[in-house]
Amino acid sequence: MSYYQHKSSEAPPPPPLPPGQLRLYHVHMNPYAHRVRLVLEAKRVPYELHALDPLRLPDWFREKNPRLKIPVLEVPTPQGDRCLFESIVICDYLDERYPQNPLHSSDPLVKAQDRLLIERFNELIKGSLECFDTNFTFGGDQILQTVDVFEKELAARGTAYFGGSSAGMLDYMVWPWLERLCLLRCLRPRAFDAKRDAFPHMSQWGHAMQCEAVVKQLASSPERYLQYYRSARAHAMGYCL
Amino acid sequence: MSYYQHKSSEAPPPPPLPPGQLRLYHVHMNPYAHRVRLVLEAKRVPYELHALDPLRLPDWFREKNPRLKIPVLEVPTPQGDRCLFESIVICDYLDERYPQNPLHSSDPLVKAQDRLLIERFNELIKGSLECFDTNFTFGGDQILQTVDVFEKELAARGTAYFGGSSAGMLDYMVWPWLERLCLLRCLRPRAFDAKRDAFPHMSQWGHAMQCEAVVKQLASSPERYLQYYRSARAHAMGYCL
Repeated sequence: MSYYQHKSSEAPPPPPLPPGQLRLYHVHMNPYAHRVRLVLEAKRVPYELHALDPLRLPDWFREKNPRLKIPVLEVPTPQGDRCLFESIVICDYLDERYPQNPLHSSDPLVKAQDRLLIERFNELIKGSLECFDTNFTFGGDQILQTVDVFEKELAARGTAYFGGSSAGMLDYMVWPWLERLCLLRCLRPRAFDAKRDAFPHMSQWGHAMQCEAVVKQLASSPERYLQYYRSARAHAMGYCL
Repeated sequence: MSYYQHKSSEAPPPPPLPPGQLRLYHVHMNPYAHRVRLVLEAKRVPYELHALDPLRLPDWFREKNPRLKIPVLEVPTPQGDRCLFESIVICDYLDERYPQNPLHSSDPLVKAQDRLLIERFNELIKGSLECFDTNFTFGGDQILQTVDVFEKELAARGTAYFGGSSAGMLDYMVWPWLERLCLLRCLRPRAFDAKRDAFPHMSQWGHAMQCEAVVKQLASSPERYLQYYRSARAHAMGYCL
């Protein structure tokens, strides 16, 4: 995994990709990029990482990706490098393009239901943003309602992970936000533990996920997230969370 | 294809599905249901249609689908009937579940790019809603900008359809709104023809789509759409367009 760092919009673009090599343009600590990295690592697809400063996007990146969405996966083709964005589209692409360790269910109905749950999870993402915007005053209800939907779903599946006996696409798509939620424990440990106990399946799932090799490799501590959020808040960087 | 009609929330639920039979709950003239019907017909999957009145949803439908999204595809399984919603999730499910006449590209990169274009097309949908809400005063720019993106894409592909030599998933996903756009010709024929001439590839594509068997079978005339829109507007039914 190579690593690039650009801090100025004058920095030169990275070189064209060698055949078969992927490049992920990302922003540090961004949960959508976290999704893609979990999938890249789970599928053991080689890639290089190129970090961007969202406040100073280089001009060549604007040309490459006029809609300025991040993360972007750059894919080499005989007709030139192609850019994919939208974390879910990128992750589904990776799962189809690289057959090893399939993450989606091979049953189209389960796959469709998982896609609907990934979409339902957007309510938790909105709740997290509202929590952040209101210094943890609002947004909690949306988060708890969504966790409750996932609690019931996991109980109904009767498996350790949503993907069965190992983490699958749905597990990885929701994990980045649930890993970050643990920062709430730093703020209100008792309230956090009480809420957690109300969701026994999700709580056990969270422990299992934290012990998973790929999750571990990319994990940050609750303290690190809290520090990042405080700094982002101070710099009005809410849009890149 | 069977047909049910309910006008009261007291109407009884339809019977459980026989194995292998699908049921689509839809609202008349709804473009999202139009998408699903195009795919069902293109793939020659047998299904029954169950029309709902969005202003008087039966109680059993609320139980079946607490989020009240329409259209819904009901799928029989040994564990009971399952409901799928979100037109794109339903259509992708159908394309995976029924291998005949595949609509998505077999190249994962093309499929991912098509998914991004389907998402980009939401700008045109928003523009159409704004047109409708403002009696055709605003929303036109969003529509034209999106058509321009698709014009350039079709020119770059150099094929009659986005799917190649025949209509594919992207063609069917955008068609319902482009069929409806022709109602603008009833209002301002000269302005409409002038705009259309600015998009020669999309114009030719529109003609080809109109002659396609599945599209023809489900088509309504521009006059019919205009009449429907006027009536929906009079009844403040914008949300179900």
